[in-house]
Amino acid sequence: MRAGEALERLSAEGPLVHHITNYVTVNLVANVTRCTGALPVMAHAAAEVEEMEEAASALVINIGTLDEALVESMILAGRRANRRGIPVVLDPVGAGATSLRTETAGRLLSGLEIAAICGNAGEISTLAGLAAEVRGVESISGDPLKAVRLAAEKLSATVAATGPTDYVSDGERVLAVRNGHPLMGRVVGSGCAATAVVGCFAAAGGGDAETVANALAYLGRAGELAAQDATGPGTFEPLWLDALAELAASPAGLEANLRIEEAA
Amino acid sequence: MRAGEALERLSAEGPLVHHITNYVTVNLVANVTRCTGALPVMAHAAAEVEEMEEAASALVINIGTLDEALVESMILAGRRANRRGIPVVLDPVGAGATSLRTETAGRLLSGLEIAAICGNAGEISTLAGLAAEVRGVESISGDPLKAVRLAAEKLSATVAATGPTDYVSDGERVLAVRNGHPLMGRVVGSGCAATAVVGCFAAAGGGDAETVANALAYLGRAGELAAQDATGPGTFEPLWLDALAELAASPAGLEANLRIEEAA
Amino acid sequence: MRAGEALERLSAEGPLVHHITNYVTVNLVANVTRCTGALPVMAHAAAEVEEMEEAASALVINIGTLDEALVESMILAGRRANRRGIPVVLDPVGAGATSLRTETAGRLLSGLEIAAICGNAGEISTLAGLAAEVRGVESISGDPLKAVRLAAEKLSATVAATGPTDYVSDGERVLAVRNGHPLMGRVVGSGCAATAVVGCFAAAGGGDAETVANALAYLGRAGELAAQDATGPGTFEPLWLDALAELAASPAGLEANLRIEEAA
Repeated sequence: MRAGEALERLSAEGPLVHHITNYVTVNLVANVTRCTGALPVMAHAAAEVEEMEEAASALVINIGTLDEALVESMILAGRRANRRGIPVVLDPVGAGATSLRTETAGRLLSGLEIAAICGNAGEISTLAGLAAEVRGVESISGDPLKAVRLAAEKLSATVAATGPTDYVSDGERVLAVRNGHPLMGRVVGSGCAATAVVGCFAAAGGGDAETVANALAYLGRAGELAAQDATGPGTFEPLWLDALAELAASPAGLEANLRIEEAA
Repeated sequence: MRAGEALERLSAEGPLVHHITNYVTVNLVANVTRCTGALPVMAHAAAEVEEMEEAASALVINIGTLDEALVESMILAGRRANRRGIPVVLDPVGAGATSLRTETAGRLLSGLEIAAICGNAGEISTLAGLAAEVRGVESISGDPLKAVRLAAEKLSATVAATGPTDYVSDGERVLAVRNGHPLMGRVVGSGCAATAVVGCFAAAGGGDAETVANALAYLGRAGELAAQDATGPGTFEPLWLDALAELAASPAGLEANLRIEEAA
Repeated sequence: MRAGEALERLSAEGPLVHHITNYVTVNLVANVTRCTGALPVMAHAAAEVEEMEEAASALVINIGTLDEALVESMILAGRRANRRGIPVVLDPVGAGATSLRTETAGRLLSGLEIAAICGNAGEISTLAGLAAEVRGVESISGDPLKAVRLAAEKLSATVAATGPTDYVSDGERVLAVRNGHPLMGRVVGSGCAATAVVGCFAAAGGGDAETVANALAYLGRAGELAAQDATGPGTFEPLWLDALAELAASPAGLEANLRIEEAA
């Protein structure tokens, strides 16, 4: 689904997007979801995640600050989401940095049907079994184009690697998304924001490569607009939210500015 | 207590307001408390919440991201607050969305003396036993005017339902607060912020309907001022904090701009 | 190490700074770390903190919202950091306010080698065994100059007390840092931000008094610049991040504006 249609549906329907996520960027993730037109809910207790899934239109799992109890809730929620047939989107934050993160990503991928995975080049390279360096939650090295295709094939999911250029693959084609601005990489949580927008678009249009690429292009386009008035990463963040909300409210001219192309 | 007196007392005395709250909006809640003139503290460990209550002038309980351990701490803190005679303010976030949230709100209301309850129309309708739809933490339907009166009567507390117009009742009268701006509804945490301000005002003036209405009117007035310079929900939030701080520092002309009236 | 050299190293090397911190100010702490040029990672699970330490260049422990499990992770991470010889920086948030916080600070100080401690006057006075009042996490009274010298001597660490004037001591000399702006004290998390910057500078230059004083002066100088355009505490925070990033990117003229002097 293309960006215009996805944003129109989100504004019209206000679907619930359930996030089980980290406590570092949770506020940004919730606000990004809200600006996109969906309704965010953050709930992590094993006692309620399955019931919350009954009302949700997508589930976003982000392992940015995980521990054992949280992983159990992710699996409970994910299974219920799978049973209901709503898309599950995974952000494997820090996969490659510690074995807990790499193994948790693997456990979620083997135990759940994941529609789309969104991470940085290092994280996706790790999932693809390629050489990579992830320092904390930052990608130091990794080959995003090769990684998304290989990971998508191996994991039977749409896979996106975000960076200066974002790459998205369904295992066959690879799309390159060239919207964005360097300030996005200076804000803590821009990767989590990308996964959140992918989750919102998936709630409207599913997790195919075109929908995921359109989500990332929309986020990047908002970043281009925000950068015009920002004086640094601090002022960029609120302006980015403003731009997301403005594009979501008036998506008419948006698609002409999205730079999505076949990469290979 | 009216807004001018409440804000003067808060600035003069800097009372401690203890929040046991969610990790989504906790930073906003703390900053709102600070801008209002009170001193926020967020502490959730069962090992310290009772001792923290000894220094506090109000306790705010927000169930936005609850789990079992947190509820135990809420009850420990609430009992100590009741014993000390300081007001306890409850935000029943998501009551009506999952049984965990609805039941936890009920458990807190039956086990503690709550001075004031502040939620959205759907949450308050749920507590009042009226038909309502709460999607995640967002009110989709509910009758706020009817709900606040019924809930206040049933629960023997001041009850506020926030929305385009806020309604506040003590079970007899209903006050309507008409300050505010639509951007408030676009920021994640505006409901939590409302409850935080109610907690601060309660620390100064208790939890009666007039004090609660004045707290919400002050927050709404700050929203009106912030909206003048905001270009969307992202830039609105920091400007809202600025306006809260400015009105708190110079409350002289504030009350003339507050729109509180008998609703029924 | 002086500020110019520290910032140049941080930008060139992008060292990982591992924070085990509170959920109130964690986003600000991460963004401050990123703006300074280091790479932040927030990870708290006992299952991964030791492995994360292997890649880290400094560990920052902040007890702002602690519970038992978190303290265990702090000790595991701290021991590994000590074994690797990387600096450990402690923010004893709320020491003096509850016995849990005072005792936890003591437990960390006796079980770990702490390179630098950074808190407010009340917290540092508490650690020094001097009379103090800490209301929640706010310093109400305490003698910072006396406290830093005494605490540094007693605890064999560099000790900083932040406030209108910051004081830093290694047990012999005391440095006064006179950069800063009153708006810093109105933002929730400015103390946590100070400790984060100390952690970043420690990753580059270690935890000696000169390096710690330079970190605080850099943060204060950024506050002075941010205050020029801020209209209150809300707009101050993003501008503060912008100023930190700008000074980090171009540290050439910075040191001429730092006001560090021998205090006693």
